[in-house]
Amino acid sequence: MAELITDIASLRSRLSGVRKTGATIGFVPTMGALHAGHGALMDAAQLGCDFVVVSVFVNPIQFNNKEDFEKYARNLQTDLDFSSTHHVGVVFAPSQEEMYPAEQDTFVEVLKVSKGLCGEFRPGHFRGVATAVAKLFNIVQPDLAYFGEKDAQQLAVIRRMVQSLNIPVGIVPVPTVREPDGLALSSRNQRLTQEQRVHARLLFQALDAARISVMTGSRRISEIRGAGLKVLAGEPRISVEYFEIVDAENMQAVTDMSGRICIAAAIWLGSVRLIDNLSLPPRS
Amino acid sequence: MAELITDIASLRSRLSGVRKTGATIGFVPTMGALHAGHGALMDAAQLGCDFVVVSVFVNPIQFNNKEDFEKYARNLQTDLDFSSTHHVGVVFAPSQEEMYPAEQDTFVEVLKVSKGLCGEFRPGHFRGVATAVAKLFNIVQPDLAYFGEKDAQQLAVIRRMVQSLNIPVGIVPVPTVREPDGLALSSRNQRLTQEQRVHARLLFQALDAARISVMTGSRRISEIRGAGLKVLAGEPRISVEYFEIVDAENMQAVTDMSGRICIAAAIWLGSVRLIDNLSLPPRS
Repeated sequence: MAELITDIASLRSRLSGVRKTGATIGFVPTMGALHAGHGALMDAAQLGCDFVVVSVFVNPIQFNNKEDFEKYARNLQTDLDFSSTHHVGVVFAPSQEEMYPAEQDTFVEVLKVSKGLCGEFRPGHFRGVATAVAKLFNIVQPDLAYFGEKDAQQLAVIRRMVQSLNIPVGIVPVPTVREPDGLALSSRNQRLTQEQRVHARLLFQALDAARISVMTGSRRISEIRGAGLKVLAGEPRISVEYFEIVDAENMQAVTDMSGRICIAAAIWLGSVRLIDNLSLPPRS
Repeated sequence: MAELITDIASLRSRLSGVRKTGATIGFVPTMGALHAGHGALMDAAQLGCDFVVVSVFVNPIQFNNKEDFEKYARNLQTDLDFSSTHHVGVVFAPSQEEMYPAEQDTFVEVLKVSKGLCGEFRPGHFRGVATAVAKLFNIVQPDLAYFGEKDAQQLAVIRRMVQSLNIPVGIVPVPTVREPDGLALSSRNQRLTQEQRVHARLLFQALDAARISVMTGSRRISEIRGAGLKVLAGEPRISVEYFEIVDAENMQAVTDMSGRICIAAAIWLGSVRLIDNLSLPPRS
């Protein structure tokens, strides 16, 4: 059974004991509502480290939309059970007051990588993510931390933050887990109606169409984007927020396909926002 | 003899060895040009910890004035000798490239405490200080870090950053070291002409006049400031940047004297900028 800890002091004391045995600590930060995507992060941490810590904390300062924050799924007992089946040592589930005893007035800002894509449509989002992850890293002090490739820009922001601030934590990316029809797992999928769930598969299909366009020889950005956007245009109830071809490291728009690129998209189905991406190796 | 280390990897490996012996690490971040004020920080670290690390790094991103950065005194051999006489274990003196291999694009911002005083007259200064100190804390990972009370707002910014980001480092303030006439030690004092050095003593005398004004019963901010400003007005070659009564914790202007307050001032003598402050306990 995973041990539940809710305050910072107890967690620090517990992990100090773990560290003294010479065990390495793997960390999986989450906002709960755990699914097989988180399971893959836990399994990777289990494989790479001696002791696994999972945090469950819905971080208010990364939500630019209050309704999205309030609607975010929360069920600690289910998350605790799920973590136990993945051999997690400690689940850290602090209260809002424990993480933010006063109004947060110190922020970590990762300038370049945070621009564009989700950064453009969710003002302050990555500042909130970077700040919360910096806090959690300082609390847990893990050797390695695991992040899903589904949130590609978040992963890029965290990598850049760790590098730029010399944070002594190794960042391990874990491949996106998908449903059989390609839909990337996300806690937000729960909020889709049955009909929306059917349409949601088009997000992956659009990314895949763009990828196929590249693999069959397209090198023009407009053509590659066009191949993906055409798939999404087939369903009028899908509203496209962005569909971009970016550099996989700095997340900025590319003008040619010479580097490692990432095809990234965000769509809305009713009031549910879904994101996904595919990375491609460099091509000539 | 203090050991000189100039790269991050070697420092980490050296300190990992120190930590394994169970020794606690005390850290004194400096920009070099070491004087007895830094000596007091080293002595405090020596008293409080088993092993003392001093960093010597003139941090470009905290200078809003390029000339000030270029004129900043640098003499590593002298600093190394000085550190040795204070029983420092390691002097960490990285190059600019070692600390900033690429343009810094991640910043730590401490919003409230950075406003006003030096924050108003040196745009970006505290963002640069907080970011560099966060980097150094992540590199050195000390148990305790020592900061001079002379830089009161800097100390307040660092304290707030550590608290807000849950950085596992204890911050120890060390009283300002002064010349016999009251002038606070600063590497910038070297740049004063003989005549300016005589006038420089008025900075402490002005702060002291404001303190005496409080101790003899003044409670009106304008009256307390007036007592200090009157002293500085006696020398036309002194240009006053600010002379303020602020809350000693958040560095914001106060309207009454009920909390612990700080009288803080910055003046210019020619091209040399000097700062100093005095703290007072709460009064009714």
